[in-house]
Amino acid sequence: MTVSRAVELDGHIIDSGTLQTCFTTIMEQGGTFEVESFDIGKSETDESYARLSVRADTEDELKAIIHELHQNGANPIDPNNATLEPAPADQVVPTGFYSTTNHPTDVRIDGEWIPVERNEMDCAVVVERTPAGARATARVLNAIEADDQVVVGETGVRVKPPERPRDNSGAFGFMQGGVSSERPSQSTIAKIADAIIETKSSGGNVLAVCGPALIHSGAREALARLVRTGYIDMLSAGNGFAVHDIERDRFGTSLGMNTETLDHPRSGHKHHIYALSEVIRAGSITNAVGEGLIGSGVMYECVTNDVPYVLAGSIRDDGPLPDTITDTIKAQNAIREQAHQADMVLMLSTLLHSVAVGNCLPSTTRVVCVDINPATVTQLLDRGSDQAVGMVTDIGTFVPMLAEQICE
Amino acid sequence: MTVSRAVELDGHIIDSGTLQTCFTTIMEQGGTFEVESFDIGKSETDESYARLSVRADTEDELKAIIHELHQNGANPIDPNNATLEPAPADQVVPTGFYSTTNHPTDVRIDGEWIPVERNEMDCAVVVERTPAGARATARVLNAIEADDQVVVGETGVRVKPPERPRDNSGAFGFMQGGVSSERPSQSTIAKIADAIIETKSSGGNVLAVCGPALIHSGAREALARLVRTGYIDMLSAGNGFAVHDIERDRFGTSLGMNTETLDHPRSGHKHHIYALSEVIRAGSITNAVGEGLIGSGVMYECVTNDVPYVLAGSIRDDGPLPDTITDTIKAQNAIREQAHQADMVLMLSTLLHSVAVGNCLPSTTRVVCVDINPATVTQLLDRGSDQAVGMVTDIGTFVPMLAEQICE
Amino acid sequence: MTVSRAVELDGHIIDSGTLQTCFTTIMEQGGTFEVESFDIGKSETDESYARLSVRADTEDELKAIIHELHQNGANPIDPNNATLEPAPADQVVPTGFYSTTNHPTDVRIDGEWIPVERNEMDCAVVVERTPAGARATARVLNAIEADDQVVVGETGVRVKPPERPRDNSGAFGFMQGGVSSERPSQSTIAKIADAIIETKSSGGNVLAVCGPALIHSGAREALARLVRTGYIDMLSAGNGFAVHDIERDRFGTSLGMNTETLDHPRSGHKHHIYALSEVIRAGSITNAVGEGLIGSGVMYECVTNDVPYVLAGSIRDDGPLPDTITDTIKAQNAIREQAHQADMVLMLSTLLHSVAVGNCLPSTTRVVCVDINPATVTQLLDRGSDQAVGMVTDIGTFVPMLAEQICE
Amino acid sequence: MTVSRAVELDGHIIDSGTLQTCFTTIMEQGGTFEVESFDIGKSETDESYARLSVRADTEDELKAIIHELHQNGANPIDPNNATLEPAPADQVVPTGFYSTTNHPTDVRIDGEWIPVERNEMDCAVVVERTPAGARATARVLNAIEADDQVVVGETGVRVKPPERPRDNSGAFGFMQGGVSSERPSQSTIAKIADAIIETKSSGGNVLAVCGPALIHSGAREALARLVRTGYIDMLSAGNGFAVHDIERDRFGTSLGMNTETLDHPRSGHKHHIYALSEVIRAGSITNAVGEGLIGSGVMYECVTNDVPYVLAGSIRDDGPLPDTITDTIKAQNAIREQAHQADMVLMLSTLLHSVAVGNCLPSTTRVVCVDINPATVTQLLDRGSDQAVGMVTDIGTFVPMLAEQICE
Repeated sequence: MTVSRAVELDGHIIDSGTLQTCFTTIMEQGGTFEVESFDIGKSETDESYARLSVRADTEDELKAIIHELHQNGANPIDPNNATLEPAPADQVVPTGFYSTTNHPTDVRIDGEWIPVERNEMDCAVVVERTPAGARATARVLNAIEADDQVVVGETGVRVKPPERPRDNSGAFGFMQGGVSSERPSQSTIAKIADAIIETKSSGGNVLAVCGPALIHSGAREALARLVRTGYIDMLSAGNGFAVHDIERDRFGTSLGMNTETLDHPRSGHKHHIYALSEVIRAGSITNAVGEGLIGSGVMYECVTNDVPYVLAGSIRDDGPLPDTITDTIKAQNAIREQAHQADMVLMLSTLLHSVAVGNCLPSTTRVVCVDINPATVTQLLDRGSDQAVGMVTDIGTFVPMLAEQICE
Repeated sequence: MTVSRAVELDGHIIDSGTLQTCFTTIMEQGGTFEVESFDIGKSETDESYARLSVRADTEDELKAIIHELHQNGANPIDPNNATLEPAPADQVVPTGFYSTTNHPTDVRIDGEWIPVERNEMDCAVVVERTPAGARATARVLNAIEADDQVVVGETGVRVKPPERPRDNSGAFGFMQGGVSSERPSQSTIAKIADAIIETKSSGGNVLAVCGPALIHSGAREALARLVRTGYIDMLSAGNGFAVHDIERDRFGTSLGMNTETLDHPRSGHKHHIYALSEVIRAGSITNAVGEGLIGSGVMYECVTNDVPYVLAGSIRDDGPLPDTITDTIKAQNAIREQAHQADMVLMLSTLLHSVAVGNCLPSTTRVVCVDINPATVTQLLDRGSDQAVGMVTDIGTFVPMLAEQICE
Repeated sequence: MTVSRAVELDGHIIDSGTLQTCFTTIMEQGGTFEVESFDIGKSETDESYARLSVRADTEDELKAIIHELHQNGANPIDPNNATLEPAPADQVVPTGFYSTTNHPTDVRIDGEWIPVERNEMDCAVVVERTPAGARATARVLNAIEADDQVVVGETGVRVKPPERPRDNSGAFGFMQGGVSSERPSQSTIAKIADAIIETKSSGGNVLAVCGPALIHSGAREALARLVRTGYIDMLSAGNGFAVHDIERDRFGTSLGMNTETLDHPRSGHKHHIYALSEVIRAGSITNAVGEGLIGSGVMYECVTNDVPYVLAGSIRDDGPLPDTITDTIKAQNAIREQAHQADMVLMLSTLLHSVAVGNCLPSTTRVVCVDINPATVTQLLDRGSDQAVGMVTDIGTFVPMLAEQICE
Repeated sequence: MTVSRAVELDGHIIDSGTLQTCFTTIMEQGGTFEVESFDIGKSETDESYARLSVRADTEDELKAIIHELHQNGANPIDPNNATLEPAPADQVVPTGFYSTTNHPTDVRIDGEWIPVERNEMDCAVVVERTPAGARATARVLNAIEADDQVVVGETGVRVKPPERPRDNSGAFGFMQGGVSSERPSQSTIAKIADAIIETKSSGGNVLAVCGPALIHSGAREALARLVRTGYIDMLSAGNGFAVHDIERDRFGTSLGMNTETLDHPRSGHKHHIYALSEVIRAGSITNAVGEGLIGSGVMYECVTNDVPYVLAGSIRDDGPLPDTITDTIKAQNAIREQAHQADMVLMLSTLLHSVAVGNCLPSTTRVVCVDINPATVTQLLDRGSDQAVGMVTDIGTFVPMLAEQICE
């Protein structure tokens, strides 16, 4: 016995790889298919349309296949509404809940397709009925409350993976090439600079996600310059990043080493404790800047130029700054807000914070990921952003060259 | 004008490198010295003694040199007590506070040398006078309270870096060789197995610090076996480690992939959310084991065999288990307790948690660090444990081979 | 003005990605296209057919696009013969020579399509007319002689990139998944073992390409066992690999370290010089085995079991064994012979030799690439083999586990 | 029964670590010792002297210990001449031959200590008696001829490991810090620039060892500038480096990619074959420059500025340039000549060629090693140069920043 179900795809389904993915998915999962209808776009601007009848031996296998197809933009042909079930308890999802991808998604409620707001991957979709109509929102497990109406199954859910852009002549054209470890470094940096400038000139927001290696490697002044000149709109980092940045301002050192002379001055290893201690006494970084305790650097420029920052605490910290969010749930929520406001994200030599931000990003956000470890860059690019570029390079030379390229 | 001060060293100061370090430190910092007295141990069991007169151009330079010498076990010759100053506020240290190394340290209070308890690096030393006498304790910045009596300067502080052991014939003899990336893998694993067995048979505690790669790479069953057979006494990990371990038990997958067949079963990507959701419903991992929800794996063996664990939350988590400590300060304190109880620490493919544990370790604790990234191993071994060995290998083959070696 | 030309594709052009590649290639190169004819395979076993009219602004641009399409399996519709031009001198190609891909290729000579023999990438195609008919052979630049008839341009050349196999249930099904660094190690090794067994049981040849790290890491005995039991048919390595293997046999050390006890016995650092010296005196490895000088190890098993080996010299060598080919051109030719005879290639922790072998492989050969450096694995897999799998792991644990899996 | 033998050490044996190494060596090898005489230098400029009586249980064990001590600068107290034995055949050493370290070494012949010329590690010492007196030369195994008088045993051999320099205030002061991956990049580059300038201004020779990644990453113009301005005196590279450099000049591409626009122009993948083909036709790189075929780049500047280069062939090459030495023995000999003439060596993103050069270097040559892979840098620095510094960074940003620092 065979069971079957029809799915349909439309858009630039050939060059975006959607049709290919569907064919291979069906075969890998042990199903078969028949192309019931296929209308190929005659030229590169025309869209195509395909309707496939997917077959499997059992209902269960068919469901598994349809599930995968659905994640990849082949939507079941059905006019049915999404199925809703109440969450059984706080932070508990109903069995069979629909788990989101990071692609734009609609759900069908009362016969209408409505977009899922604040979408990111691995969330449940909660539907609320308001006087103004139904609203659907992606929610992480933490944020699920008992009796929330949660979408279950795949019926009435429509996913639209971003299509390959028709035009790659702009600054972002190069952003589809994956990891670049053997590419010309200076030219790649120039392309990234162009993409930042284009993002800013079209009114977009740039979020910089920064690891402490940025300070140790001497890139602090260049990043401060980018903040000061308005190319960074938000900053996400760990407590250590801010402590080292402030240590550098107060004592000229980073982890006790003078980043210019490479000397280790006396008592240098205490500097980060002093830096922490002084900001704690002042009450906040803003206060410390106000009192004149801090007069330069990334955090100084953030305070002075009203660039909002999120500092997340970590189990490695010598102690939290007053500004640091030590609860990881609260820190994640603050990061989530930043991620949803960003049009372009620079991930600068931090795996932990980059993954945290990346988890919250829709697949349409532009991402540049820079690290000296190729495994880190590969891991971050694997998370499925559509317009992402990775560069395996030294953050200590990258940021100064980028700042020079952008600001001059 | 020249100023000078005498310092003395004793013990196995030649083969432990102490004397060499002192000579080079003085020269690097621009000072000069005269050996006032030197008594070399005639044979390998005799101790040596040296007294140096250290000279510099200014009092400030001299202080800087003495400071460095002091960190390395050359103690100023003075019968003076340590200087104490009150902490000006909570989490604020007095200027010039003595910042600890991770070596055994004494402070001189009321004419007596007393050991600094719970010592670890980058702490302040707080002295309390009790009816039973003075006590000195190392405290992280977080734990400093206003008016705590804090040691400042170097007077009355004595550091004893661990000496090179006289005998390296035992299981730990090999643990002074730094990172091993071109060493024979199976033989090195056999040596590590011996060291664990020896630690256990002499009544020591073994702490395993575990990253999620351990589960993804299929080493879960082998680690569970080590817990079950009593070779792991404590476990330190992140929320993700436990979630993936439980996902594997409930659904046979890790991050959605079946770790045996390498298939990606239907809906696999939801499994970790379900695993989380079910434990939340049960109230704790222990409850979930009690209810029979969890029947195998590392966390199961921990619960069943009363092996205490600390799960720290992270900004990357899809959501915390009820057992997870989401506040990083509280999590660090829990990790600190584990670190101080451990006689041997296995750092298994996690940089974040290994650094957190390593920060709290005295230099006398034995450390084995295993990661596939050589930079991670180097960074962890640089933190100054005296009996530490690193191995650059695949955690997915290392743990099974280790378990086989130990348990058979 | 616009110029245009028709190309056609057939086969499993959707799920193999061919059609997608063609669409994106045209757009990236600034061309446009019209689908003149499209016949989609109705089910997963049917082939599809597409004919595109490709347009560009200038003849030069059109040529560039057609060139790229051609490399990817879209062949110009023309009944013309390939154009031949004589090579102007030894090792010199005529301008516009056709440079091969590593995919199966035909050229049209005297109205007939004939296959290019011994095809590999970056070669010229030389056509010879023999009494038995025309023959076409791929030749590296080195091998071109003055007046050889060399194919120029793309007319009369047909490329067939391998299609996605219809069935991935067998041992090789998993070999399309790229690099596996977070995959379960033991299960992946089991899959590789299955693929080797299947290759052997279907009469195929397995070529092992080995780096010296294999010996240092203690995997020598396991590899020797695979040679002895007949799972390795050919071996390709450098001089150093053989020297260290023989050093281990003669002295129990590798680079002076005892690979079992991890001791460095007296004079260990001279062992590799002695090993070299003794084989030189014997005249060859075979002689040294015959004289009983060598009694175990990889080279011993190769000699004893008639497994042919190629040892290439390197500028790093302490000195060449009599068996080592010190001329790089001759060594490359010997490697080329091996590569063309292999049905499956194991690349074991050597970038240099793996690239050398990989350069000579057609895209249809199965490749397993194992290295602890993820960048090495990525670089090797990028070379375009169609059935290739990479694993980031420790060669010192990989080979023993593989041998156990295969031989037991 | 115990056997014993006296050894002596002098110089800055404490701060150079020599005495420490000797103590630990004796203990690790199971021996004991008595300090018979010890005269410590009273101040940092005074030398020290130690005479130890080393004891072991058997003559064999004692020999093993003395052997190790000897390698580390503790010389047996004996007035005996070195023992000479004839080499039994070409490329065959007598049993017990003395294998060199890379430290300055003397041998005692006819009652006189004479220096070993052209010393490098893993060589035999061949003594020739000439009318002008005896001469001792280090010879690789290849260069040994039957009946050469070869030093055997340790008698009459004296090793002087370089001492820690008394002054580290100059440009080379920083060159004792090992690998720098978390150090400030720009400041480290400035230090390296100073060291190059100092080497040149004191009449020294700078050898650049270059990998092809240097061209791919876009650093070609900067390196060409350093050659043109006289900061590079010799160049060592592989065939591929030169081919890609010339491809860039002829076609604007490297491996087919335009290193400025990042485009892949039509037929780009054939460019390196054309580049090769054209130089072959011209007969040599010099001819090609003379004919105006090559007008820019590293090889062009070498030819134009009479900077000698060695190009070694490899089994990876698409074909050798006429200038390339394809025999690895001959290539190694050419590299050896360069290495012995160099006062400072820059190892730029090539493991293979850097190891080849490093093998031939005495321990007194200054070495800077730059690579993006930390394992490569660690491996190269482990080879025992005394004044070596490693930097983990991107060669594509490093060379341009270095050239700017030096030339402006």
